[in-house]
Amino acid sequence: MPDRIPVYLDCDTGVDDSLALAYLLASPAVELVGVGTVSGNTAAAQAARNTLDLLALAGRDGIPVAVGAHDHLDHPYDGGAPHVHGDNGIGGVVLPRADAEPDPRTAAQLLVDLSHTYAGRLHVLAIGPLTNLAHALAADPSLPDRVAAVTVMGGAALVPGNISAVAEANVYNDPQAAAALLAADWDVTLAPLDVTLEHTLSEEQRRMLLADERPFVRALGSILDHYFDFYLPLYGQRMSALHDPLAAVLAAGAFTPTRAPRVPVVVDTGTGPGRGQTIADLRGQRLGPRDHDGVRTRVVLALDAPVAEHLVEVILAG
Amino acid sequence: MPDRIPVYLDCDTGVDDSLALAYLLASPAVELVGVGTVSGNTAAAQAARNTLDLLALAGRDGIPVAVGAHDHLDHPYDGGAPHVHGDNGIGGVVLPRADAEPDPRTAAQLLVDLSHTYAGRLHVLAIGPLTNLAHALAADPSLPDRVAAVTVMGGAALVPGNISAVAEANVYNDPQAAAALLAADWDVTLAPLDVTLEHTLSEEQRRMLLADERPFVRALGSILDHYFDFYLPLYGQRMSALHDPLAAVLAAGAFTPTRAPRVPVVVDTGTGPGRGQTIADLRGQRLGPRDHDGVRTRVVLALDAPVAEHLVEVILAG
Repeated sequence: MPDRIPVYLDCDTGVDDSLALAYLLASPAVELVGVGTVSGNTAAAQAARNTLDLLALAGRDGIPVAVGAHDHLDHPYDGGAPHVHGDNGIGGVVLPRADAEPDPRTAAQLLVDLSHTYAGRLHVLAIGPLTNLAHALAADPSLPDRVAAVTVMGGAALVPGNISAVAEANVYNDPQAAAALLAADWDVTLAPLDVTLEHTLSEEQRRMLLADERPFVRALGSILDHYFDFYLPLYGQRMSALHDPLAAVLAAGAFTPTRAPRVPVVVDTGTGPGRGQTIADLRGQRLGPRDHDGVRTRVVLALDAPVAEHLVEVILAG
Repeated sequence: MPDRIPVYLDCDTGVDDSLALAYLLASPAVELVGVGTVSGNTAAAQAARNTLDLLALAGRDGIPVAVGAHDHLDHPYDGGAPHVHGDNGIGGVVLPRADAEPDPRTAAQLLVDLSHTYAGRLHVLAIGPLTNLAHALAADPSLPDRVAAVTVMGGAALVPGNISAVAEANVYNDPQAAAALLAADWDVTLAPLDVTLEHTLSEEQRRMLLADERPFVRALGSILDHYFDFYLPLYGQRMSALHDPLAAVLAAGAFTPTRAPRVPVVVDTGTGPGRGQTIADLRGQRLGPRDHDGVRTRVVLALDAPVAEHLVEVILAG
């Protein structure tokens, strides 16, 4: 499959991570070549277990899954978000336990190794806290030279945060790691809440997954159940944001963002009320998107595309 | 004039301050009972001189003008914004020098005195850095008990800042003072860039001021000239934002904000990239504006009203 994009996925599986994983497995544009996990929605070890079980259920258990950082750069793991993702990270759904065990490497080492195997071609898709990527950058500062692109689900530019007034959970959970990622010299696409909250999966689409004959696809529908409850007060009906799947769709190149200026982005790594905020300099954009010279981070503010329909279509056809 | 709202104006005159001052003088809803100045657009002493000269030109030189804080709570005055407001704060326009001299009191003392004279009725309108208000609160913590309402032009909630990626100039120039104001127990209406940038004065409206027979009104048109040049790259045509006048219009009760939830607002008083940001907790507002219980600060996010037309009409009729 010479034209497929080799993707390393860094995740904290996670309800929406599961959906992103399913999309990456099904997309003809992508070859998923490795997964590293990190504590976020759930603990790194649990995220690896969830990922291994999902891969086995999908019949794709040859993909290496490495357990990454349990704790973050400047603080320990805080216990995750069971009210959002359920006690086990996947909405409380109990999957058949896969025989496969995690890869013995750390997630950071797996990423570095894959960057050599797929030098110049590897895409990094990070949909959890960015701790593993920071460790990989610290271990091998030449990593960006071998990575074609990085896509991150994280941050909030001109909308409120989801874990504080201004911070999104992935970045908030490890602000220093996010700062390290954004300071490195590579092409980053940041998919913040500005765009991920605007793309939603409907109950009807969830039922399409539930109605599939394959246990893996049906499991996705079940996993989303608890998540839909969480989003009910936010949207006023049972549905969910497509945070991680939207980043996966962007990494696969399925759609071109409608508005995604390349602007300086820094992270508030302090301990004040702005902790974990992604501060994107979006001044001077009133007359239209304007890229800053030399900036390699684009912030996706709008994506006018049928993301949910595409996602479900690819997964059902996979 | 028993029904007029007694207003203490705290300002850093300033091009748009001049327009706000003219509105307050002309509005039949307002009795301007005192002015305190602060360093911001220009130095506090220069702002007082500009205010005295404008009042004299308007034939209203009986209103006390007190020179307030030259320096801010945690740092000295930085020299202002001559590229925006001209070297003298009023677009380089040289007004006839008034005979009147500043009131001997500090601005903070004038405010405290007026809060006794107009106890329970006084409205405070702050359109510069909030240093004087912080000094008044520190000198007399009972001040809020005697103030009916506070209206502030300042901050940026869900739009970029104008002095950093996330900070608006008035708050950035004295974050600690803004924090003190927002922590006090009084009714605050915050008019941030979210709404003030959306209301603009056109070149045609400026020419209406220039065509007036009264030297004071003509001077306003001249003062705006330099300011229109500054805003050209932002709006793509010669026009200007109505930052301070919009706050004056709100203080006069001319319009009811379309969207102004009462939400917690804190200020980043640190020295990181978020310094001076007004962090308004606007989570959970997707299904409509929602006030937080017990919060007395409303953040004006939208005002669907013909602010510029009203402003010009009142000034021309004044």
